[in-house]
Amino acid sequence: MAETGVELLSSIDDLRGGVRVDMKEAVDPNIFSTSLKASISHWRQQGKQGVWIKLPIELSSLVDAAVKEGFRYHHAESDYLMLVYWIPDTVETLPVNASHRVGIGAFVTNHKREVLVVQESRGMFRGSGVWKLPTGVTNEGEDICDAAIREVKEETGIQTEFVEVLAFRQSHQAFFSKSDLFFVCLLKPHSFDIQKRDSEVAEAQWMPVEEYAAQPFNQKNEMFNLIAKVCLAKLDTGYVGFSAVPATSTSGKRNYMYCNNLYMGFKTSSTNNQP
Amino acid sequence: MAETGVELLSSIDDLRGGVRVDMKEAVDPNIFSTSLKASISHWRQQGKQGVWIKLPIELSSLVDAAVKEGFRYHHAESDYLMLVYWIPDTVETLPVNASHRVGIGAFVTNHKREVLVVQESRGMFRGSGVWKLPTGVTNEGEDICDAAIREVKEETGIQTEFVEVLAFRQSHQAFFSKSDLFFVCLLKPHSFDIQKRDSEVAEAQWMPVEEYAAQPFNQKNEMFNLIAKVCLAKLDTGYVGFSAVPATSTSGKRNYMYCNNLYMGFKTSSTNNQP
Repeated sequence: MAETGVELLSSIDDLRGGVRVDMKEAVDPNIFSTSLKASISHWRQQGKQGVWIKLPIELSSLVDAAVKEGFRYHHAESDYLMLVYWIPDTVETLPVNASHRVGIGAFVTNHKREVLVVQESRGMFRGSGVWKLPTGVTNEGEDICDAAIREVKEETGIQTEFVEVLAFRQSHQAFFSKSDLFFVCLLKPHSFDIQKRDSEVAEAQWMPVEEYAAQPFNQKNEMFNLIAKVCLAKLDTGYVGFSAVPATSTSGKRNYMYCNNLYMGFKTSSTNNQP
Repeated sequence: MAETGVELLSSIDDLRGGVRVDMKEAVDPNIFSTSLKASISHWRQQGKQGVWIKLPIELSSLVDAAVKEGFRYHHAESDYLMLVYWIPDTVETLPVNASHRVGIGAFVTNHKREVLVVQESRGMFRGSGVWKLPTGVTNEGEDICDAAIREVKEETGIQTEFVEVLAFRQSHQAFFSKSDLFFVCLLKPHSFDIQKRDSEVAEAQWMPVEEYAAQPFNQKNEMFNLIAKVCLAKLDTGYVGFSAVPATSTSGKRNYMYCNNLYMGFKTSSTNNQP
């Protein structure tokens, strides 16, 4: 309760000199507006900088009130909207929003020089007859190396081990103003019988790599052509991609650094997972 | 105007069987709600799938009405909120939201085996005495190779040319539930006098690489230690990173594929930009 008798919003301090409000209970927009005004005044006196308000989608009736008090959008997910307000007269130093989607393509070959390919049941390749590498998008918090293994399993039932990132591609305006990073991963199969396919995949098979690379689609599209060439180079030359090297960050979390391990000799995820 | 006499929302068809509404003019939330209801019914009859509504922040009073009609949030930027509604009874196949922020670190050395380093004026390293590589976040639609050149210029005034990505790191929960991809780039300097610094940088200098790598911070933090080792390997061994190879996509846009060009001999951005 502030001196004015108005109930202040409950907040927690963040690590960057600001505060965060997690709205959970429904409240009348007018009452919210009054509380927010009083709270901003209180935080300003305390020298707080960025103010974050997380509004679950159930509380969409409060969005307008927050904007009217000077908040702007920061980011949104399906079920919530994050708004932010910078109190001081200094330059804003808030973290930027996410700008990229991260996808993977999996290059998996067997001992007969065949590559694991699929035909998609939807999307731009549906009904085109194009055989392509299994692809997919990383889930929230998922590592590139794990996403590649998961997608191959989901689309073909094949169990694999991550070896290295062969190449990656950055593209822009992939959806709205957002960008896309696509990592082509080399995986080693631990099984060979194609058994399971999710609904996104119409067909899956092992196909001679030369036949895969020679498809008109791969020939006509410059980017796909480059990627196919890199995959072939991996089979036929000393091509070295980037291995996944596990490391602990300052905050104690395990992350991966991807690098050319030929000269480094770091312990990689692949050697760790070897059965 | 629908048969009911209710004004339908103006929309354009998208390439995925859906429609997109760009709200621009202010309208009473109740009128918007009625129009939206009639429009959804109309689109359903037409067999449309995903419905996108872009609401500029000035029209925040309409957010609640859209949510009440069954829309969910897709993503938001500072000045707008994108909502989406999936009409059919089939599984939703809408593009996912962006999940990653993309940052760069620049490794720039001169002929005296010195590396270009900075001390930050804010953030977690402020006042710590730590000398670190120039770093930054890519702008909307900016390529990794261009972002590295820009950040070095902004922070130190040094003009550079992009050579290759030496390594990259993926980390999660970097801000809220979002992830981070950080690319360590090797750049070749075209100038050596440190002249300009933006407000984020307190100091900048050329520092012997061994001294840089030996800093307690680089020794204690496993991830930073790995990155420093890769940088040193680039100077002392045959370490090869990923070059930027320009390629045209199906839609005619120029994108970069990054790969180990040692065995490929592709024309790279570096050879293109050579003065």
